[in-house]
Amino acid sequence: MNQKIQEKLNEVREHVSKIEELDRLSALVYWDMKICMPKKALEQRANTLAYITGESFKLTTGEEVKEFINYFNPIINELSIVDKAMMRNLKKNYEETKKIPEKIHKQYSIVTSLSEAAWEEAREKNDFSIFKPHLEKVVAFQREFVEYLGYKENKYDALLGKFEEGITVKKLDKIFGELKEGILNILEYIKKSNKKINREFLNAKFDIKKQKEISLYLLDKIKFDMDAGRLDETTHPFTTNFGNKDVRITTHYFERDLLSNIYSIIHEGGHGLYELHIPDNLLGTGLAIGASMGIHESQSRFYENIIGRSKEFIKVILPFIKEKFSNLEDVTLDEFYSAVNYVEPSLIRTEADELTYSLHVIIRYEIEKELINGDIEVKDLPKVWKEKYIEYLGVEPKTDNEGILQDMHWSDGSFGYFPSYALGNIYGGQFLNKLMQDNENAINNLEDGDMSYINEWLSNNIHKYGGIYTPEELVKKVTSEELSTKYFLNYLENKYKQIY
Amino acid sequence: MNQKIQEKLNEVREHVSKIEELDRLSALVYWDMKICMPKKALEQRANTLAYITGESFKLTTGEEVKEFINYFNPIINELSIVDKAMMRNLKKNYEETKKIPEKIHKQYSIVTSLSEAAWEEAREKNDFSIFKPHLEKVVAFQREFVEYLGYKENKYDALLGKFEEGITVKKLDKIFGELKEGILNILEYIKKSNKKINREFLNAKFDIKKQKEISLYLLDKIKFDMDAGRLDETTHPFTTNFGNKDVRITTHYFERDLLSNIYSIIHEGGHGLYELHIPDNLLGTGLAIGASMGIHESQSRFYENIIGRSKEFIKVILPFIKEKFSNLEDVTLDEFYSAVNYVEPSLIRTEADELTYSLHVIIRYEIEKELINGDIEVKDLPKVWKEKYIEYLGVEPKTDNEGILQDMHWSDGSFGYFPSYALGNIYGGQFLNKLMQDNENAINNLEDGDMSYINEWLSNNIHKYGGIYTPEELVKKVTSEELSTKYFLNYLENKYKQIY
Repeated sequence: MNQKIQEKLNEVREHVSKIEELDRLSALVYWDMKICMPKKALEQRANTLAYITGESFKLTTGEEVKEFINYFNPIINELSIVDKAMMRNLKKNYEETKKIPEKIHKQYSIVTSLSEAAWEEAREKNDFSIFKPHLEKVVAFQREFVEYLGYKENKYDALLGKFEEGITVKKLDKIFGELKEGILNILEYIKKSNKKINREFLNAKFDIKKQKEISLYLLDKIKFDMDAGRLDETTHPFTTNFGNKDVRITTHYFERDLLSNIYSIIHEGGHGLYELHIPDNLLGTGLAIGASMGIHESQSRFYENIIGRSKEFIKVILPFIKEKFSNLEDVTLDEFYSAVNYVEPSLIRTEADELTYSLHVIIRYEIEKELINGDIEVKDLPKVWKEKYIEYLGVEPKTDNEGILQDMHWSDGSFGYFPSYALGNIYGGQFLNKLMQDNENAINNLEDGDMSYINEWLSNNIHKYGGIYTPEELVKKVTSEELSTKYFLNYLENKYKQIY
Repeated sequence: MNQKIQEKLNEVREHVSKIEELDRLSALVYWDMKICMPKKALEQRANTLAYITGESFKLTTGEEVKEFINYFNPIINELSIVDKAMMRNLKKNYEETKKIPEKIHKQYSIVTSLSEAAWEEAREKNDFSIFKPHLEKVVAFQREFVEYLGYKENKYDALLGKFEEGITVKKLDKIFGELKEGILNILEYIKKSNKKINREFLNAKFDIKKQKEISLYLLDKIKFDMDAGRLDETTHPFTTNFGNKDVRITTHYFERDLLSNIYSIIHEGGHGLYELHIPDNLLGTGLAIGASMGIHESQSRFYENIIGRSKEFIKVILPFIKEKFSNLEDVTLDEFYSAVNYVEPSLIRTEADELTYSLHVIIRYEIEKELINGDIEVKDLPKVWKEKYIEYLGVEPKTDNEGILQDMHWSDGSFGYFPSYALGNIYGGQFLNKLMQDNENAINNLEDGDMSYINEWLSNNIHKYGGIYTPEELVKKVTSEELSTKYFLNYLENKYKQIY
């Protein structure tokens, strides 16, 4: 590569580094808002965020970006894989951000901040009618965005693509159709099973201080580096990061629920390991991120469910848990394993078991699709929600909090995001299949208590690529196959037919 | 004011708001580094700070600022007090920042970050020779800055003015001369006194958890609003803020030292109250700050010493302290009051008593003055330091940590900062005199346990003006007099002749 091109690349990297710094600042400000900020600072903090967003918008859509794109367009194939991906990413963000006028962006940010507050109030009062007028505005904006963003076959495609490049309604209808059928079949099998799973021993008080010791033990087990990360408490657990050397996760503790913290820790720890394993050479390229929301979720759910709810892993951690809680002394490995994998269709997504979880997501996918296409309206939501929960899960929400108000995603306008959760499950199953092809003892060997092999496999096959590949490309690269529900469904069937 | 001028003012405010947001982000990043950041993130965090500094430099020295200055210069007296001060401040920062070339700024920021690390290593090893070559570089830069910044009478004036507008060597030589003489006289008196102060009861273990309860109690007593602030722990206590609704202080706890936390809390709480009392109308003008470092220190030391070490305040808090620590049950008010005001010349500035504290500062002032003027060199520092400590305080440092290495200020290039500490004492004494003129019972009434009157007096006379006035102007405005050491020395003399 000649010197002139190299110099231009350096210019791009310098520009991208600035966007990256703004992303980090934004993440830090959000984290601080959730963990540290005193409550009276909310309004001033909103100004700070607006400043960051404005600067980021300028850098993402600036004339210099257009110039970079035009410069490299004719010679794009001369670039390294990383630089090529950096340019693709820069271009994608430029075009997508440009499509929606800044004025609309600004109006929308006011609408969503009011809508988030309204959702919180509605939650407190368990009353959808408080949230309804705000959600109507958010949906109106989303429908407008769809027109700005453009779409080929289905309006909802425009929103799906924001979170999962390459994913469309056409693909999801097929994939989620298969997934739904497969899960419902397994659920049918379980319903007919006579196996009684004992969960009595979980119905006790579990001292929070001891639960905290378990958190640190688990993070150590999965090799989450606490010198490059930290753990805090929030109502809703989440993961954020500022570069690959500062990855922060949160969890929550309930005295009456031992498992909630355990699986939050492993789930968020999985997100965290992804970010910790991003290599340094991707810093300053805009690619020091996960491949997509769905791929990110595949990693957290891989750690949470495929590893965390495996008999092998539980065999390792159970003695430590028993040491902390003597009331569990007589619980056998099989009993504990069955209890953490107990299946029961329920109303709340975040509390769902591994099997029925995806059904909650599919319900939301179907509702969003109809809503964005104008086939239903916000006023119809409680009714549609109830019908689908009865149909798919056989349960009926009695209050708004048990139903339509349970997730905050719509309040901040994250339409198109939900499918990532179920896609994560599907990706995870497919990655597991490849892992087992590479080493059929990978999961069995977990009972030795050493995560190194699996951590390295995921790191070398997925994490180290950061955002270089689209999710489609990455799945192909890792598994040499297109996305398929087969492996995840096989995994579920094997697991649950063994348990029940 | 015509519409066009108003529009231009709005432009200025929008510009200044951005600088303010960057300041807030910088403060947040620093706070997070000290309190939350995992250690491996240090290098990446330095990049984030460099980004913020660079953006702030651009906004402070941009062409648009020059244009604003030129626009308002001819009509400056038509502006409101606030807008006029905003323009003065903008101009001052523009000119000062412009004076030093950006290249030098960048080189210097590398030098100081290495120098800070070297100071820490030197502290660990108690060895000045590790820090010496770095300090030499920092001093060389400071001497260069002096030439860029310009000065009339004394090179050191250029650095003093950065922290305390209007303060010069000529003024300080006089003021600090008086202060030194006055303090030495009182010290002489104390040495001759036969009064024996009992501090035995402080020589005990004080449970940290109970000390923490005392912290919250004290913050509540001085009316520090915990809904607009927070308290954390660091080795060296400090205060920072992001606007006037998010003010964060830190303290430290020692099991063997009950007083250290108590007076750190009141000191930092004083800084914090200043920021909490800044009115909303100064946000976005660049004036939502203290008038100067010295004025800020006057407030923290007012709360710490004039209030916090007064018999009236101690009368209020002692019962709570005794409730926590039963070993203090038999200590009388007089005994506790005398113990917290015990005078003993010592080696470490931050542990000095109220009386001898200023001597530590004067020593540093004299050393900096000679160093910047080239009258002494870095290699002479340990010797000069030792001589002055023997001369002024009658104590001799046996190790570098007890002497030349105790403060971090020189490692980050804060030359010209130390005098603010002693100026703070002098301002405080002068404010106290005016307070007592307004209400001779202001301090006596503290024994009712209500800080409202004093808080409001300081707020209305000092805090509410933020950075509108220079320290000189503010002192004049509040007290109708020029800066004078008389009142602080009177206060000290009355207090210590009563105790001893």
